[in-house]
Amino acid sequence: MYRRPGVSTTVPDTPALHEFEDALGPGRVITSEHELREWRDPFQFESWDEYTASAVVMPETVEEVQAVVRIAGRHGIPLWTHSQGRNNGYGGPAPRVQGSVIVSLRNMNRVLEIDEECAYALVEPGVRWFDLYEALRAGGHRLMLSIADIGWGSVIGNTLDNGITYMPYGQDQQMQCGMEVVLADGEVMRTGMGALPGSPAWNVYKRGLGPTADQLFMQSNFGIVTKMGVWLMPYPEVFHPVWVRVWNDDDLGPLTDTLRALMLDGTIRGVPQMLNTVLFGSMISSHDQWWTGEGPIPDREIERMGRELEIGRWMLRCALYGDEAVVEHQFAKVREAFARIPGADVWGWMCAPEDIPSLENPHERVMGGVPNLDLNAMVAWYGGDQGGHIGFSPIAPLTGHHAGELRDLMRGMLAESGLDYMASLLPVSARSFAHITMIIYDTKNEQQVRSAFDVSKRLVRQAAKQGYGEYRAHLDFMDLAAEQYSWNNHAYMRFCETIKDAVDPQGILAPGKQGIWPKSMRGSR
Amino acid sequence: MYRRPGVSTTVPDTPALHEFEDALGPGRVITSEHELREWRDPFQFESWDEYTASAVVMPETVEEVQAVVRIAGRHGIPLWTHSQGRNNGYGGPAPRVQGSVIVSLRNMNRVLEIDEECAYALVEPGVRWFDLYEALRAGGHRLMLSIADIGWGSVIGNTLDNGITYMPYGQDQQMQCGMEVVLADGEVMRTGMGALPGSPAWNVYKRGLGPTADQLFMQSNFGIVTKMGVWLMPYPEVFHPVWVRVWNDDDLGPLTDTLRALMLDGTIRGVPQMLNTVLFGSMISSHDQWWTGEGPIPDREIERMGRELEIGRWMLRCALYGDEAVVEHQFAKVREAFARIPGADVWGWMCAPEDIPSLENPHERVMGGVPNLDLNAMVAWYGGDQGGHIGFSPIAPLTGHHAGELRDLMRGMLAESGLDYMASLLPVSARSFAHITMIIYDTKNEQQVRSAFDVSKRLVRQAAKQGYGEYRAHLDFMDLAAEQYSWNNHAYMRFCETIKDAVDPQGILAPGKQGIWPKSMRGSR
Repeated sequence: MYRRPGVSTTVPDTPALHEFEDALGPGRVITSEHELREWRDPFQFESWDEYTASAVVMPETVEEVQAVVRIAGRHGIPLWTHSQGRNNGYGGPAPRVQGSVIVSLRNMNRVLEIDEECAYALVEPGVRWFDLYEALRAGGHRLMLSIADIGWGSVIGNTLDNGITYMPYGQDQQMQCGMEVVLADGEVMRTGMGALPGSPAWNVYKRGLGPTADQLFMQSNFGIVTKMGVWLMPYPEVFHPVWVRVWNDDDLGPLTDTLRALMLDGTIRGVPQMLNTVLFGSMISSHDQWWTGEGPIPDREIERMGRELEIGRWMLRCALYGDEAVVEHQFAKVREAFARIPGADVWGWMCAPEDIPSLENPHERVMGGVPNLDLNAMVAWYGGDQGGHIGFSPIAPLTGHHAGELRDLMRGMLAESGLDYMASLLPVSARSFAHITMIIYDTKNEQQVRSAFDVSKRLVRQAAKQGYGEYRAHLDFMDLAAEQYSWNNHAYMRFCETIKDAVDPQGILAPGKQGIWPKSMRGSR
Repeated sequence: MYRRPGVSTTVPDTPALHEFEDALGPGRVITSEHELREWRDPFQFESWDEYTASAVVMPETVEEVQAVVRIAGRHGIPLWTHSQGRNNGYGGPAPRVQGSVIVSLRNMNRVLEIDEECAYALVEPGVRWFDLYEALRAGGHRLMLSIADIGWGSVIGNTLDNGITYMPYGQDQQMQCGMEVVLADGEVMRTGMGALPGSPAWNVYKRGLGPTADQLFMQSNFGIVTKMGVWLMPYPEVFHPVWVRVWNDDDLGPLTDTLRALMLDGTIRGVPQMLNTVLFGSMISSHDQWWTGEGPIPDREIERMGRELEIGRWMLRCALYGDEAVVEHQFAKVREAFARIPGADVWGWMCAPEDIPSLENPHERVMGGVPNLDLNAMVAWYGGDQGGHIGFSPIAPLTGHHAGELRDLMRGMLAESGLDYMASLLPVSARSFAHITMIIYDTKNEQQVRSAFDVSKRLVRQAAKQGYGEYRAHLDFMDLAAEQYSWNNHAYMRFCETIKDAVDPQGILAPGKQGIWPKSMRGSR
């Protein structure tokens, strides 16, 4: 197992800071304690300061990003980059190393190109789901964007953390095509066909000549992505949300197995979610409505919640996209398949793509590519506007067996910590799912925050013992999560470290990101 | 531009050779000149010897691969790995550096696992399309494998060279999931979820925690892949080949644009091909039937060929897979769309997956996942059994404009060299295509072989000037092809070299592969 020295740094009042100011101009280097609060993990307890930055720099061009990296290199300053910094549940915009300089790309927010013919866009890191959606509308493009649940995030930022979206290009996170990356030495490179000057194929062909490096820049600290191609979907004839509701907790098994068959045969081409009663209910009600006693809501109250909110024990959401005749056939098939689960309800409806913005249900707008913030309501589960959550998200094969195993493991351990089990099982494609566990708490209640962080770490260890590893880890247990990937004496991490040391020998880019530390900061194994 | 020293090596009668023999046992180290002939590029002129190996070693286990790599490391011997070595048109099994030791994985040929529930297989590098197909049949699995045109190739070998297959998982070359890799220091690692001991998700989820390295091992020389997961498609209700024939050469434009729309909207989910008269005709006739004059077949004779063989000027092949009702709808839509091209003929038929092996047309068996060798007949275009070809394959956006530009460029330059223009435009997915140019020649005719190699190199340069880069390069012009990817002073190649030097500091793994040379063999730029 890894041990790491506590590392921290500080930059205010150093020559480096003045160099950043000279390079970026006034107002783009932030150091006041008050302003820096915006760049903390919004879901940590207020007085914890392990993951605070000492400055934020806000470049607006690729050249400025290069300048920032070169200054950091000269002074050996750790940087921590984000696009929008909406990484809620995983640490927000906060850096792994205390005192790092955050490189915030929020103001690099141009939609550089929208190609109607080949259905793609080229964007900068600060472009949010909202922004690209608006650009498509403003340009009159009949193109849809596969988006995340909460519209404020960055298209690039979400993609680089292997974030999940819900339309067909969301399957296997496959909508990215082509990147421009600033490396640790300040050089800029383009991947794939972008490496060929004047190539019109940068954002239409996913590989190039030689190895393909794009996924090397996801969940890593090997470079700073400054441009990315995003594939868009032409308007289908119709959009058809589908809902399946089951009434018994153990219906999760057949629900999962039925879903796999429908995804494997291409009937369901988007990315569904299977939400349990408490998580679904948290978006439309609050904890105290159902339970004011000690500990998590008891099972009988969850039953009541399912009945009264008419959401059963599990709700499956998904959508069909295509020609009306095909979608009609597919919906009939989906309905028939799920109807074999006793008591299951299956419903949905069809609309034109133009009508998606006016749909009442925010889940349906999300699946239809219309960004909104409504689903963020769940964080208020424990009351007030001070709610937070940690995401704990292991991956498993998409089978009823594994769905049941993970549910039992999570629910049991969360109950021991007095926390509710709030889950969305999210099939990334036909063969696997991320068990998104939303560990929700009141950020003003230090004991509850502490419990949530502690149980998360126990979950990382216990899940790994049973063969389940995280798809994405919270800042506070990135090292722990990465340590579980230990096959052949951590061969994979050692390979990542070899690359890290080669491409960033000074270790200035996001040290510690997903457990990858530069040589100067690595402990002994 | 790069310059490289001529490098060569030789190993027979060295201590290293005896170490290989000790590690692998009798009969698994080949050095006789006679036997080594099998490992030459079968399509080079006989007496050329620039790309000949001095020995072949044939490990049968991962541990033996590790031993081979460690011996090579101790002695500084360049290795050149292949799975089956069917890399025809791109150099076959031959190494880039004369005198290298070939690591042939042909005997590492076990299908390790077939998972019916999640529809995947885990295979070793020597497993051919034929072998995995037979394993699926023998096990009674109702699972289909997306295959290449010629069935003798390795599943892993094809995948690692970004090879193209034709079913839905062929789009964007997306059927690979999870790898085991032996690194240059002899260590073995597993990618993705395979890095987590006991994970059941290695071959069902394509990423892991941290960066995803799988595509780093494609078209590269960073490691030797010893196991790989392959996604399979459950039998659809029906399989439906589709053919479109157009009679005017310039129908290529609308053919391409129509196809893009049908792929973008998900109607066509597999990988089509658009074959010109001469390439399609080469599989069912020979050059001398049509033209015995000097130079390439004149256009009027191509017209005649199209009429007499009933293949028009361009033939589009593709297939639909799915529920009968959906496929019926899709075929009607496809027919209607292409019928807008004046004179176009559209036909096809439907069959059960069980009936695919008995289809007469080898193209249809290929699209249905039943491997065969029939399409290899084209190499006999110039008569006899001594035909060879070079593949020249630039990438472009899937638009009629780019299809026409590339056709004109290729045809013009090939004609100047007295060679026929034989092309398959192959949409890798909805937005781009590889213009596979088959430069076919008689391997016994040294002047024709020389012309073919020379024009290929001129094509690499000229295509790149117009913005088109190769998706995969022949051994003889890998360096030249890679040099075209020169954006920002070859930033991408310099990045690859940084990684190469870090993961293989001695430069023993496949030096020169796709233009990536280790430090010790790099020339000045």
